[in-house]
Amino acid sequence: MASAYISQAVIKRLPRYMRFLSELKAEGVDRISSKELSERMHVTASQIRQDLNHFGGFGQQGYGYNVTNLIKEIGRILGLDEPHNLIVIGAGNLGRALAGYGNFENRGLYIRALFDAAPENTVPDVRGLPVYSMDRLPGYLKTHSIDIAVLTIPKEYAVEVAAKLYDAGIRGFWNFAHVDLELPEDAVVENVHLSESLMQLTYYMKHSN
Amino acid sequence: MASAYISQAVIKRLPRYMRFLSELKAEGVDRISSKELSERMHVTASQIRQDLNHFGGFGQQGYGYNVTNLIKEIGRILGLDEPHNLIVIGAGNLGRALAGYGNFENRGLYIRALFDAAPENTVPDVRGLPVYSMDRLPGYLKTHSIDIAVLTIPKEYAVEVAAKLYDAGIRGFWNFAHVDLELPEDAVVENVHLSESLMQLTYYMKHSN
Repeated sequence: MASAYISQAVIKRLPRYMRFLSELKAEGVDRISSKELSERMHVTASQIRQDLNHFGGFGQQGYGYNVTNLIKEIGRILGLDEPHNLIVIGAGNLGRALAGYGNFENRGLYIRALFDAAPENTVPDVRGLPVYSMDRLPGYLKTHSIDIAVLTIPKEYAVEVAAKLYDAGIRGFWNFAHVDLELPEDAVVENVHLSESLMQLTYYMKHSN
Repeated sequence: MASAYISQAVIKRLPRYMRFLSELKAEGVDRISSKELSERMHVTASQIRQDLNHFGGFGQQGYGYNVTNLIKEIGRILGLDEPHNLIVIGAGNLGRALAGYGNFENRGLYIRALFDAAPENTVPDVRGLPVYSMDRLPGYLKTHSIDIAVLTIPKEYAVEVAAKLYDAGIRGFWNFAHVDLELPEDAVVENVHLSESLMQLTYYMKHSN
């Protein structure tokens, strides 16, 4: 399988290709040369050719890339060729912000419900999604096929809740709680520690001058 | 200056050291060995020694690291030795979530106000912070010393608003809008493209099995 040979650096760039290619498609563009794409993305044409060569057959000299095919192929690599069902744990501002992104659905990422310790406090609702009490979580997971949990709860609860979600069969964790989850090896965790990103910013502000 | 020789990989790890060291300090721990810290952080003691050697003098054989000094020194490297003043552009769920993190203030990162195209729609208020109309932004920036703008507005507006903020003297941009900002070279931009992080998760879910 070709994807087994793709480096981490390329993988990190794939969602960015997805974004630009999807914008092109929305503009009605069917084909684009690596030169045009490079101007748009502010990277070199040679890097684009190198990156996209991993997916073979979609770029031809003097002919350009087929935008739709490339989106489909990159989506397949990124695991977006089959739909994912998500629940958001924590219906505070951040949980509601994430649940509110209708755009995820364009990628086959469906947020199905939110759970909160105090669901009655969370107004207004988000795109009509249900907000359930945490004690309904075990029952819900028995009757719904969910593969990704989005954790936007305080770090004091995140480790314990993640363990319960794992026991209920969830293997994908998008973790916004500011703590390292402790889960078995077959769990996949993507951490978004926002304050760490802000500190990268202050670092570069200090050292760029 | 020692910091000029620190690699990007180390810089990316510094906020994580900050987090663990701050937790230790909160627990009343004054000194910690690289071995103990490594067990807590799940990295090797040798990596910790290597990373923290960049800051020289805070670790001594058989004596451990002085937690408070190390926090201070890493904070200095990260540009947290002087306070930063932030405004949030966009008072939707995400903007309110970010403005709500009281923890940023512990690092000298002060969110001063939010701005929104329709401020009357944004309830409830966040930690008593003012929410102003966008047309008050130019006047506000003349009378307040703000160095970081947090952009949580739709991508259609982000490029234009960022250019105006730059013209008003802001050089730090924490950008959650799903678009590349086009700013002069002395602007420092840290992008948080959340959907790209979610696609990393689906990639690893597909390929880890």
